[in-house]
Amino acid sequence: MDIADWRRQIDELDRKLVDLLSQRAHAAHEIGKLKRVAGMPIYEPDRESTVFANVRKVNPGPLPDVDLQRIYERIMDIMRKIQQEEIA
Amino acid sequence: MDIADWRRQIDELDRKLVDLLSQRAHAAHEIGKLKRVAGMPIYEPDRESTVFANVRKVNPGPLPDVDLQRIYERIMDIMRKIQQEEIA
Repeated sequence: MDIADWRRQIDELDRKLVDLLSQRAHAAHEIGKLKRVAGMPIYEPDRESTVFANVRKVNPGPLPDVDLQRIYERIMDIMRKIQQEEIA
Repeated sequence: MDIADWRRQIDELDRKLVDLLSQRAHAAHEIGKLKRVAGMPIYEPDRESTVFANVRKVNPGPLPDVDLQRIYERIMDIMRKIQQEEIA
């Protein structure tokens, strides 16, 4: 495969990644609504630690765990913001 | 659905996300090898702009484009690092 072939594969992976991130944002938003009703805090460090542990556990490589965690730290930052907002 | 149900769904989405991110890292690593052979630069701002445009184009919401782009900026940071490294 040449560079153009790999990039076509990456573009296809990105479409799937955006779909999954969007589904994850929808779920985060629904959790945010339930937390508001229940008077629960948005930031739950124990749950975030569980998420990080889960993704490390299923990491098949070649991404080092520390790099996967850095991507997930950004994802969790954004998802926390989504939970706080009253978006549709 | 209660919070536990949504979290189970998120855990399943995370397993799929890790799989796609790992496939993307593998592709980035292969591109890195081809670039080294061809004497091409690792950092290609035009290609990165194309990736950002592609993900915005397929973004169905509810994530605002700016938030999706922030996640992708972190992904691209890591992928650039992967291209530079001689990992397996």
